[in-house]
Amino acid sequence: MNTDSYHSHHSPFGAFASFTIGLTDSQGGFGQALRGPAAQNVYIGYKQADQKAWQLLPYFQPSRSQEAAFTGVEGEATQARTMQALPADAFTRELGWCTDTWRANAGCFGFSLLTPVDRIADPTRLSKARERFHLAPIVCGWIEYDNRAGDGAVELVFGLGEPERPPRPLADSHPGLAGFATGTSYGYATRPAKGVSLRQGFDIFAPKFFDYRGLHVIGSESALVFTVPAGRRRRFPLVLGFYQPDQATTGMPTEYAFSRCFSGLEDALDHGLNHFSEYEKIALTRDRELARSGLDEHQRYLVAQSTHSYLGNTQLLRSGPEVVWVVNEGEYRMINTFDLTVDHLFYELAWHPWTVRNTLDLFVDRYAYTDRIKVGTRTVPGGLSFTHDMGVMNHFTPEGRSSYECDHLHGCFSHMTMEQLLNWVLTAVTYAEKTGDKTWLRRRKDVLIACAESMRRRDNPDPRKRDGILKQDSDRCGPDGSEITTYDSLDVSLGQARNNLYLAVKTLGAWILLERAFERLGLSDERTAARSASGLLASTLTTKFESDTGFFPAVFESGNRSRIIPAVEGFVYPLYLGITEALDFKGRFGPLLQQLNAHIKGVLKPGLCLDAKSGGWKMSSTSTNTWFSKIALSQYVVRQLFPEAMNAQARAADKVHADWQRHPGCGSQAMCDQILSDTGVTCGSRYYPRGVTSYLWLLE
Amino acid sequence: MNTDSYHSHHSPFGAFASFTIGLTDSQGGFGQALRGPAAQNVYIGYKQADQKAWQLLPYFQPSRSQEAAFTGVEGEATQARTMQALPADAFTRELGWCTDTWRANAGCFGFSLLTPVDRIADPTRLSKARERFHLAPIVCGWIEYDNRAGDGAVELVFGLGEPERPPRPLADSHPGLAGFATGTSYGYATRPAKGVSLRQGFDIFAPKFFDYRGLHVIGSESALVFTVPAGRRRRFPLVLGFYQPDQATTGMPTEYAFSRCFSGLEDALDHGLNHFSEYEKIALTRDRELARSGLDEHQRYLVAQSTHSYLGNTQLLRSGPEVVWVVNEGEYRMINTFDLTVDHLFYELAWHPWTVRNTLDLFVDRYAYTDRIKVGTRTVPGGLSFTHDMGVMNHFTPEGRSSYECDHLHGCFSHMTMEQLLNWVLTAVTYAEKTGDKTWLRRRKDVLIACAESMRRRDNPDPRKRDGILKQDSDRCGPDGSEITTYDSLDVSLGQARNNLYLAVKTLGAWILLERAFERLGLSDERTAARSASGLLASTLTTKFESDTGFFPAVFESGNRSRIIPAVEGFVYPLYLGITEALDFKGRFGPLLQQLNAHIKGVLKPGLCLDAKSGGWKMSSTSTNTWFSKIALSQYVVRQLFPEAMNAQARAADKVHADWQRHPGCGSQAMCDQILSDTGVTCGSRYYPRGVTSYLWLLE
Repeated sequence: MNTDSYHSHHSPFGAFASFTIGLTDSQGGFGQALRGPAAQNVYIGYKQADQKAWQLLPYFQPSRSQEAAFTGVEGEATQARTMQALPADAFTRELGWCTDTWRANAGCFGFSLLTPVDRIADPTRLSKARERFHLAPIVCGWIEYDNRAGDGAVELVFGLGEPERPPRPLADSHPGLAGFATGTSYGYATRPAKGVSLRQGFDIFAPKFFDYRGLHVIGSESALVFTVPAGRRRRFPLVLGFYQPDQATTGMPTEYAFSRCFSGLEDALDHGLNHFSEYEKIALTRDRELARSGLDEHQRYLVAQSTHSYLGNTQLLRSGPEVVWVVNEGEYRMINTFDLTVDHLFYELAWHPWTVRNTLDLFVDRYAYTDRIKVGTRTVPGGLSFTHDMGVMNHFTPEGRSSYECDHLHGCFSHMTMEQLLNWVLTAVTYAEKTGDKTWLRRRKDVLIACAESMRRRDNPDPRKRDGILKQDSDRCGPDGSEITTYDSLDVSLGQARNNLYLAVKTLGAWILLERAFERLGLSDERTAARSASGLLASTLTTKFESDTGFFPAVFESGNRSRIIPAVEGFVYPLYLGITEALDFKGRFGPLLQQLNAHIKGVLKPGLCLDAKSGGWKMSSTSTNTWFSKIALSQYVVRQLFPEAMNAQARAADKVHADWQRHPGCGSQAMCDQILSDTGVTCGSRYYPRGVTSYLWLLE
Repeated sequence: MNTDSYHSHHSPFGAFASFTIGLTDSQGGFGQALRGPAAQNVYIGYKQADQKAWQLLPYFQPSRSQEAAFTGVEGEATQARTMQALPADAFTRELGWCTDTWRANAGCFGFSLLTPVDRIADPTRLSKARERFHLAPIVCGWIEYDNRAGDGAVELVFGLGEPERPPRPLADSHPGLAGFATGTSYGYATRPAKGVSLRQGFDIFAPKFFDYRGLHVIGSESALVFTVPAGRRRRFPLVLGFYQPDQATTGMPTEYAFSRCFSGLEDALDHGLNHFSEYEKIALTRDRELARSGLDEHQRYLVAQSTHSYLGNTQLLRSGPEVVWVVNEGEYRMINTFDLTVDHLFYELAWHPWTVRNTLDLFVDRYAYTDRIKVGTRTVPGGLSFTHDMGVMNHFTPEGRSSYECDHLHGCFSHMTMEQLLNWVLTAVTYAEKTGDKTWLRRRKDVLIACAESMRRRDNPDPRKRDGILKQDSDRCGPDGSEITTYDSLDVSLGQARNNLYLAVKTLGAWILLERAFERLGLSDERTAARSASGLLASTLTTKFESDTGFFPAVFESGNRSRIIPAVEGFVYPLYLGITEALDFKGRFGPLLQQLNAHIKGVLKPGLCLDAKSGGWKMSSTSTNTWFSKIALSQYVVRQLFPEAMNAQARAADKVHADWQRHPGCGSQAMCDQILSDTGVTCGSRYYPRGVTSYLWLLE
């Protein structure tokens, strides 16, 4: 019995759009810039000649016909007799990296959606044809039936029901398209052909009213119906498209990049049908790559599902001649949240590294600031840092200001000055090292130098008092507030920035990368200073280790005894870049690595950082709120740098993590990041892109 | 105790938009192109210095703060402690023709929305300044408090809550605006000033998080807060605006006319604040005109409420240099449904007669067709007619085709060939006579002649067999279908076109008008033929009168004995145009008028065409589905042409009709047209423009 029930994004690149389906007995469909799945009935299925009712994938809810609004008389509920949702044991679903395929009736029925991931060059350097190919705001798919053993015609259906916005037949604007569109925003099409027919009306499964062409365009249900004659096997292509022609964002006005190379929805749909096989080829190539990756089935599922949700949050914009890259933050829809950028980094460097540079540049050009820091009751000059995000819900906030950060707080919504400072350094050097883009690194030399100085001052403005660990808060917090980390909604073990283990090791990672960058730039003084800073910090950290317990405390204050997995997060950067000198247990960070090894071996046990009930990984021993994206990232570090820690229970959690996403507790909102480790139910960060840190697993 | 509870549209001219509020304990707010009220919490009220909770008009529903999605922890429900909905007896509401005003706290608190109706010339002839003035996609309003007797400051609030689409502070894009916008689509503003402050966050009544400017822009609630110091009385202007820059319709691509003269939402809001007093003056002038009209309070309410809903359905578009006028059909959103155009006629000729001509021209140029008619089992050439509508949901259907009409039917959704043919004739001649636009009449001379010939052939293709009454069905109905009338959802008494009393008298009206038009055009043969046709038809009609009962049957077939009020509807046109010759009880239609007088006197009795339970007017004695717009129109005819029929019970129904709209049975959807006469609950045609036939009452 298949208990999987989860929504997946099916999304073009950079359109902040998704055709979301997959949760049993639930609506979904086309959505752009939404915080969760859309609410359309999606009708996908088949009817054999001798069947009275259509057999449909369970992606709809019973709906009342709009007919009564016209006739003044409540109509009968005919749908129950003419359509049936396939029960869970009557169909299979297989989510590949870039395909999502359903089968029923012993495999005779098939439906698939393709979301091809491809390497994409900077669009300002693409030919018009390649730009159209990569930026097309479409999702391809197909529907098929193998009726070779049948003795009657079989019908296939792909349709939508959305009472608020009845659709229009595409043939009215484009004779080469059979299908329907909703306004100018989205639609679906195939090619007009023998065996392809259209339906529109109040009830497409029991139509009562037919105009001159057999439709009833005041009805809010529409469908393509395909006929497969007895003895034949037929597969029909489908293209689902999105469009938006005008101003897409405010604060900093931009348009969707696709609107520069497509004239409208019809153009995009037509393009998709013309290039269907190229898109399909890419999707199948990716599927094969993941299948052969050596990851287990649960890991493969997590990579696939998170890639789908990442894509759904991507948004490529144009502002004049410039492109502006945005990844939206899932249900929160914050723009380029920097503590997500630093995690999407590894995926983006593989597929479209220019997006990383684009975001770094916008942080410098529009979202940098210089603060003062609080020392006792005074403030003194601080240094450069960056905002938490660039805005929210398609609105870019004013220069130097985020949408998230508020003053006078100690917890959620406070400032993340140190966190984002580190994120710029780590993202920038990782980008430059991985791509070899030394030109850009040189251009941003002054920013790197200013970042290093800012990091030092946040330790202590007085060089003599420094030990490498952040101890000051930005005056942006106000006299009565303190900085937090990206782990804002966990308990103090991860939420507080000052004297924080996670942030300290991340700072270490930043110094290691800065040393490398200054070396590339020939800045020997800065290089030496960076090396000395990392040495100092590592040395300080070793003093924090509790030799009695064998653990690090999460916070070096107030007798904190929380145990956290992200103690090792900061090592992902030297690991990813292959800076082996920093990873050597016998090298200069050897003592610290030994302690971290003991720590991580110790925490990966039930009741500490493995949930005693579910077995899933917990970021902190003192919080049940755990984050999948960070689990995935730390697994990459632990498996490679601290392999002894991967005991059988820690390894067995892959299935737990996948089950969380495969079941409605998370699956109702596609990929979710914040999850209650005991129940597997999401408690935040729904419909979320960050799970794509699991891409790192493919590099192990 | 005030039991009124009803939504009203508050709408710009031609923007297909509304800020809808007024239903107790219900959401509303900004909506464009919707089929019913939007679903935003609207916060309007005040708080005295010594009050803990805000006192708000009851136009919101309890909502859950979005905070929990960020913090991972369910927040407390603080709203209950910080906001209270005013109970029904704690505030008053007065709907004027062009104002909607709420008062509370002994009149100290006041809030008003203005929707100024003005005479508007053809926009292609307007100066840019006048075009901006009339087409501004805005609704003005004000909020005030009289704190002269107070000893502490009072705060006023106007705010919105919409979780799906958090707003943005307008100051980010326009320093002269204090307020908020949702994307580029809608927003509200006042001028920045002392005593004006902004709020945004998860809960504007118990804000916990404040950024550098005191807002939290990830929150989905926003508000303007105004402070009125003790001893002062202050009124603050508000402007609510809508905008849409790009393609507004498909099938025939157009843009909103306002997008040609406003650069965006900010421009429109700024304009509204600059011209506030001019808009207010117009609204107050209209209010006074209605107050002094001599109509009773119930009639005045119905005129006011229906004008508001009419405006919300209007849509002025541009296609190249042309303007395209659309009135949308309420919840159905069909475009320029012709049987509504013929009813909006009287209102439009008073305020913007060019819209009538515009619609007539588009019916000729794009939505005319020539059919064949069914005679026995054969078809023979029919003639010119027009489609039921021009499309639906911002999609213009292909040429010569409506969105509504289907084949092979005898009831709802069948063709209305004869009905729409008459509607073109009646609308065209009424327009030309009322405006004196003889140039246009001359240009459409051939259409009028073709219409007359088409009307004759639908009686009988053989001139010798004609008696004036429609007896053939268009072949568009198919061999197994028959034409219907605008009264599609009533029983056969009004729904069947063939041999129908209502349609026959309407045909008589059309011949009377055609005679007048042909006279103006100097077409003496056609004039004589029209006069002879009306004489023949009137003479035939007199033979249908049942001298035993004193009634006309509704249908001259199958022994039908339904009694209908619209028997007199066709006389509205000669009455409105003052064609006294046709209205003379001693003239050539005297015998028919005498019979109609007896008929209408007879039907306006409880159990026939006055509902036995409610006392409301029923269109048909055999259907409880009654239509307010048609009640209003027939009242105009009955009161002037058949005044004896207006017995005390018939007159008392004004209050019944007003109560239907003032209570949630209809009021939940602003003005409703189809109503169950026994319960007063709407059964169709919600959020509807056609009630504006009540404008005729102001001409009595």
